[in-house]
Amino acid sequence: MGVKEIRTAMKVDLNKPADQQLGLHNRWHPDVPFSGTIKNGEIVKVECIDWTGGQIGNNDSADDVKNVDLTKIHYLSGPFEVETAEPGDVLIVEIQDVQPFQDQPWGFTGVFHKDNGGGFLDEIYPEAAKAIWDFEGIFCSSRHIPGVRFPGLIHPGILGCAPSAEILAEWNRREGELISANQLDRIVAQPPQPQNVHAGSASDEIKEKVGKEGARTIPGRPEHGGNCDIKNLSRGSKVYLPIHVKGAKFSVGDLHFSQGDGEISFCGAIEMAGIITLKLTVMKNGMSDLGMKSPLFLPGPVEPHYGPGRYLTFEGFSVDGNGKQHYLDATVAYRQTILRCIEYLRRFGYSDYQVYLLLSCAPVQGHVAGLVDIPNACMTLGLPMDIFSFDIHPESKVQKTDMGSCAFASK
Amino acid sequence: MGVKEIRTAMKVDLNKPADQQLGLHNRWHPDVPFSGTIKNGEIVKVECIDWTGGQIGNNDSADDVKNVDLTKIHYLSGPFEVETAEPGDVLIVEIQDVQPFQDQPWGFTGVFHKDNGGGFLDEIYPEAAKAIWDFEGIFCSSRHIPGVRFPGLIHPGILGCAPSAEILAEWNRREGELISANQLDRIVAQPPQPQNVHAGSASDEIKEKVGKEGARTIPGRPEHGGNCDIKNLSRGSKVYLPIHVKGAKFSVGDLHFSQGDGEISFCGAIEMAGIITLKLTVMKNGMSDLGMKSPLFLPGPVEPHYGPGRYLTFEGFSVDGNGKQHYLDATVAYRQTILRCIEYLRRFGYSDYQVYLLLSCAPVQGHVAGLVDIPNACMTLGLPMDIFSFDIHPESKVQKTDMGSCAFASK
Amino acid sequence: MGVKEIRTAMKVDLNKPADQQLGLHNRWHPDVPFSGTIKNGEIVKVECIDWTGGQIGNNDSADDVKNVDLTKIHYLSGPFEVETAEPGDVLIVEIQDVQPFQDQPWGFTGVFHKDNGGGFLDEIYPEAAKAIWDFEGIFCSSRHIPGVRFPGLIHPGILGCAPSAEILAEWNRREGELISANQLDRIVAQPPQPQNVHAGSASDEIKEKVGKEGARTIPGRPEHGGNCDIKNLSRGSKVYLPIHVKGAKFSVGDLHFSQGDGEISFCGAIEMAGIITLKLTVMKNGMSDLGMKSPLFLPGPVEPHYGPGRYLTFEGFSVDGNGKQHYLDATVAYRQTILRCIEYLRRFGYSDYQVYLLLSCAPVQGHVAGLVDIPNACMTLGLPMDIFSFDIHPESKVQKTDMGSCAFASK
Amino acid sequence: MGVKEIRTAMKVDLNKPADQQLGLHNRWHPDVPFSGTIKNGEIVKVECIDWTGGQIGNNDSADDVKNVDLTKIHYLSGPFEVETAEPGDVLIVEIQDVQPFQDQPWGFTGVFHKDNGGGFLDEIYPEAAKAIWDFEGIFCSSRHIPGVRFPGLIHPGILGCAPSAEILAEWNRREGELISANQLDRIVAQPPQPQNVHAGSASDEIKEKVGKEGARTIPGRPEHGGNCDIKNLSRGSKVYLPIHVKGAKFSVGDLHFSQGDGEISFCGAIEMAGIITLKLTVMKNGMSDLGMKSPLFLPGPVEPHYGPGRYLTFEGFSVDGNGKQHYLDATVAYRQTILRCIEYLRRFGYSDYQVYLLLSCAPVQGHVAGLVDIPNACMTLGLPMDIFSFDIHPESKVQKTDMGSCAFASK
Repeated sequence: MGVKEIRTAMKVDLNKPADQQLGLHNRWHPDVPFSGTIKNGEIVKVECIDWTGGQIGNNDSADDVKNVDLTKIHYLSGPFEVETAEPGDVLIVEIQDVQPFQDQPWGFTGVFHKDNGGGFLDEIYPEAAKAIWDFEGIFCSSRHIPGVRFPGLIHPGILGCAPSAEILAEWNRREGELISANQLDRIVAQPPQPQNVHAGSASDEIKEKVGKEGARTIPGRPEHGGNCDIKNLSRGSKVYLPIHVKGAKFSVGDLHFSQGDGEISFCGAIEMAGIITLKLTVMKNGMSDLGMKSPLFLPGPVEPHYGPGRYLTFEGFSVDGNGKQHYLDATVAYRQTILRCIEYLRRFGYSDYQVYLLLSCAPVQGHVAGLVDIPNACMTLGLPMDIFSFDIHPESKVQKTDMGSCAFASK
Repeated sequence: MGVKEIRTAMKVDLNKPADQQLGLHNRWHPDVPFSGTIKNGEIVKVECIDWTGGQIGNNDSADDVKNVDLTKIHYLSGPFEVETAEPGDVLIVEIQDVQPFQDQPWGFTGVFHKDNGGGFLDEIYPEAAKAIWDFEGIFCSSRHIPGVRFPGLIHPGILGCAPSAEILAEWNRREGELISANQLDRIVAQPPQPQNVHAGSASDEIKEKVGKEGARTIPGRPEHGGNCDIKNLSRGSKVYLPIHVKGAKFSVGDLHFSQGDGEISFCGAIEMAGIITLKLTVMKNGMSDLGMKSPLFLPGPVEPHYGPGRYLTFEGFSVDGNGKQHYLDATVAYRQTILRCIEYLRRFGYSDYQVYLLLSCAPVQGHVAGLVDIPNACMTLGLPMDIFSFDIHPESKVQKTDMGSCAFASK
Repeated sequence: MGVKEIRTAMKVDLNKPADQQLGLHNRWHPDVPFSGTIKNGEIVKVECIDWTGGQIGNNDSADDVKNVDLTKIHYLSGPFEVETAEPGDVLIVEIQDVQPFQDQPWGFTGVFHKDNGGGFLDEIYPEAAKAIWDFEGIFCSSRHIPGVRFPGLIHPGILGCAPSAEILAEWNRREGELISANQLDRIVAQPPQPQNVHAGSASDEIKEKVGKEGARTIPGRPEHGGNCDIKNLSRGSKVYLPIHVKGAKFSVGDLHFSQGDGEISFCGAIEMAGIITLKLTVMKNGMSDLGMKSPLFLPGPVEPHYGPGRYLTFEGFSVDGNGKQHYLDATVAYRQTILRCIEYLRRFGYSDYQVYLLLSCAPVQGHVAGLVDIPNACMTLGLPMDIFSFDIHPESKVQKTDMGSCAFASK
Repeated sequence: MGVKEIRTAMKVDLNKPADQQLGLHNRWHPDVPFSGTIKNGEIVKVECIDWTGGQIGNNDSADDVKNVDLTKIHYLSGPFEVETAEPGDVLIVEIQDVQPFQDQPWGFTGVFHKDNGGGFLDEIYPEAAKAIWDFEGIFCSSRHIPGVRFPGLIHPGILGCAPSAEILAEWNRREGELISANQLDRIVAQPPQPQNVHAGSASDEIKEKVGKEGARTIPGRPEHGGNCDIKNLSRGSKVYLPIHVKGAKFSVGDLHFSQGDGEISFCGAIEMAGIITLKLTVMKNGMSDLGMKSPLFLPGPVEPHYGPGRYLTFEGFSVDGNGKQHYLDATVAYRQTILRCIEYLRRFGYSDYQVYLLLSCAPVQGHVAGLVDIPNACMTLGLPMDIFSFDIHPESKVQKTDMGSCAFASK
């Protein structure tokens, strides 16, 4: 009987290079060795570094964002062996808590440069930019975007179990096809990348294999979840993940203090290092019992909630900025929705880059409205008015204010 | 002093053909004559017929859905002259209430046949289908989809002010270009359609002009809103609409008892005739003051709310059912999300068509999750578990039940 | 097949004196005859007059409130026979909808005179006062209390099944004892009152009996519910009522467009005539199966919700205005809470009577905080800031405005 | 620039007796010396011990509860000097976060023995009892009350500024009068108590004075707040506290992981030691500007929320268990409400003491319903159904289960 601290299944060292920490890895591959074992039904804490492995600093220049080395991302904690887990089972992951490290109460949001990562609006906003967020308990605020403050909807951007060899092959096939067929003037997917591969405690041989075959952690994928960047996977959520290999090989990382729907600037959440508390339970034969092809989840009951009437909502349609009509294209429509919001907030003195950063990380709601009324998709973006320290209601008077500047890269 | 009934600015007759009612129209054109005048700041009731003009009956066959004449839709009430409104102003529309007619307490949801209207999943579900919903106060239930019952999130699918001649020309230009360039084996947009045009009380000459030039009411469009099918524009909402012509020429219609995000089966809401109570106020110079290119709105405070933890949430990615990888395509991802939900609910005894109908009209939440993690867009679909009379929680036991059938067309 | 209007189980005539309408009654007694029959499981509409039977007019004088004849209240619709209901069963009442009459879109809130009805603050505010509310769809506003507007949380103040003879006797015993023992300088309970008794279609003999024995409808009572004035019994709620007589003898009335917790001015809700849509279902042996002594309920999912952070909350303690310490007295504490709110809102130009009326009928939340920290009870009052058209946040600038006046009685 | 940990303004030592820690105190008195200084506008962390000072252990006996020494309670952290604060100002306290100590992830709920503390139901449940709660991230569960699990609504039970000498005198006067006049067979208030007084770093002379005059911390009081036990003062809340002495002398303590409205068992919250993060800001002349006599607050936006339809709600009236009618007594009515809930939950196998403990600490909603319908007050208790691992809906089947036992004292 008596006091029992929750076991920490994985520790990280923020002062040690990520690639020297054997409990981390940065590719999806069934051969990355287990970094620890968790009992079926156990509650554990797992420490995570930020997704870039510490490449971004708490300062007022976006040079680090501009020059970020994307071959290194994302550093995940794991993979963990979950006892009794077999292929075909489902891993129930309860997210009991997520916290930043107490002595590192800050995070960052970045706009990647169009030529190194890019983002949802890189055609319009090609430069690198950055905002540093200070954590004040459950709230955050930024010297780079004055006038806003909001409670975090804290969550992991990435969680998932390792693919089987077959699934991994399928990923490489279909993404390879997309890359081969690409006629856009931009990178559409990332093939396996041996450079800077981190396969945990793998032997050199395995590491080489992981480098050659391992899937990048950038996209989420239907078979296992991964980098879904779902802002609602916050404290109290319960996620149901397909298991494809013995022991599950569960990994987690890319912690976000907050994120808006879409995570539009790519490095768009408030990225942080921190600790996640998880309860892992195996549901035998869960995949067939649930008829499951992709993860399911139930959000937790403690999301910040503002009342529906407090969301100023913008509409966007699948007509792009050049007046070109697209056919039921929700992606184009969502981009327009965001541009409408940028135009609206610009009137208060914010720069477009500040709003771009803000909409990436504040708890904005991106909804499908209509997706069948040919040829237009209609999407909406709900902006909680209560995150602003001044009144942004359409019927209130606008006062343009000096809003300072976000961080930019040096020329 | 004393009792004052709210003025009804427009009456409809449900027993008279729609094309004989002069207060209705079914095309967007600046020359459709005013059907009435509303004072700036006035509260009025406006009666509306259902969007098909009564083509669909309360019965157990989907023949009417299969054979629907789409050249007739949508029949809108209006356009109304709003006093003092000028181009460049904004029309503030407060939706004070929406109600079905007391003696017509039912509505319908339809799946259009692939060859006559189609829908979001018509490649997979090409047949026509229908569900009739009975209204029981704020709730509805259907003999065609047993086991569900939910309060309506009642709203107009369409509201907007008439386009100016210039805007109309731009619509015809850009949609015409899409039609010309189309290489898909399906209709991607509808050009002006003289057949069955209804231009209210217009002269023959004007009517002919409206038929030749008038925009179809099917898509919402960025310049004025229109058929946005935003389920959150329910009672208590406040919508800010751009005004492009003198007097605003405001129209409203396509009332929905309820709808899910996406209105996926196209005739996907619970379509009904009814009465909308509106307050119309002109905001002078609103478009430039608000930096507005597309409508804005604030939802009302009375949406049904279930708590975030009551939404069973499905994930979808931009990998289609043939294993083809699409590049950040939110439309493809949303379709996958819906298919995941169909697979899940199938286990309880529902047919796929029943679920397709249900997800079109029940208050499901379609969210953007991540839209930057190349190559995958990730979308989520939140299904409120409390609309079911049995427990659909992933950890509860599934019992397959005879769920009857929705209505189908005769062969 | 086809259109089916919901049956109206009871009609009222607003132009006919209440005491001439045989479907109404104003006392609780098992011998009041049935006014109609409802099937087990049936959905019906029931029309109700306002609780005073039309004594209060839509005008700017509170003379009618001052001189109200309280021997007449409340006029209830019923009692209805519910088929198959037996003593010991539970009546499940689903409140499907509540609406004002379309041609009577207004209601009233009154402060009764201290010598004729009184109210929660009658020691401080002894005069009669009144506010008329205009209904604008789901919203209401008042010319007597400018600057506020809110959606109704529409509900019946009274619903319950008739007491058995034994229960009625117990009510008369215990309330008689309170009356006998009363040493306060005020009326503490109302004994049976033959004057103006209305026993529906009862014979003279029965009517006389009901007059002598029948319980007044003013208080709610644990055995059956009755006048509970629970604002949350709104659209979509499900109430579980004990049944004490064969056929249930269910009655309903005292419709409220809106009410605050406590209904503090006694005539404190927005009182109205209107139509309630109900589904009545019998749960056999429900009382013992549920271990039930008093009604239970589940609120509906469509309450107006503002987000917790939008409730400005006042604290009150069981120390009265004379500095006297009371022992864990939640009633005294709640009164103090309300006085704190009056003092706060007074600064904006409202009179105390205006706020007293407002807090009676707006959707304020009255909570128990601590009720064990001797000697002080602590109660809170949450005031939704969003019902005001100006900003009442403590950190915003106060601007005192001419707020006109509520209606008062002539001297 | 760079990482900045939030300053801890006060540390406690859980292994050292509370009365030896100079930053703590357990009486309200203006002469208790400052324990530290906080800048106007500063964010700080303050560590707190549990309110009993560690008298209650993580074990399965309630002997410690039965024998608790109540002369020692509550140990508060402070009082802090807030720079620039003057009498008449208001202290704005933003509660940025509250956390248990990482290495002490548990708390306790106790029922005090009727002869040593008692509680809201001590006439019926006189024995001492206890439940230990384990913290699993934001959730808690108890081996003493199986079948429930809920996220904490974490908050401080006590926060307030020191009384002036005049206010303190008034407290002693009015509570002394109550004690003198008491004819109940129970303690109704606690006078100053020199035994076990802790006045921080005060000199012996001051300490003696504080012992003689200092107000007990048990009750909240209107002039400053104090032990209000308001469950909604959780993360993100903003409290406005009257300042009565130079430097404010702000104290805080009695941290609760969760509490129900009323905190009915007196030691009723989940009591814990932990860390509170606060931002303190002085509002000059706030008391007169706000017309403030008692504290105000705005809850935070992150309360657990379940949707209104998920609260099973019980009704209670001011008729006590002996059938005695009380006059508009909300305290009696609330007690009945709780008893109704105990009777309901008893059917599932819980003992009455288990439910008594549960309703003290789970996030139940205690509302005023009607408080004017003479002679009955009506109160409601909303129980969130989602905290149970089984279905407690009234229409679901009841299965009585072995629910073990809470901890009791040895005989």
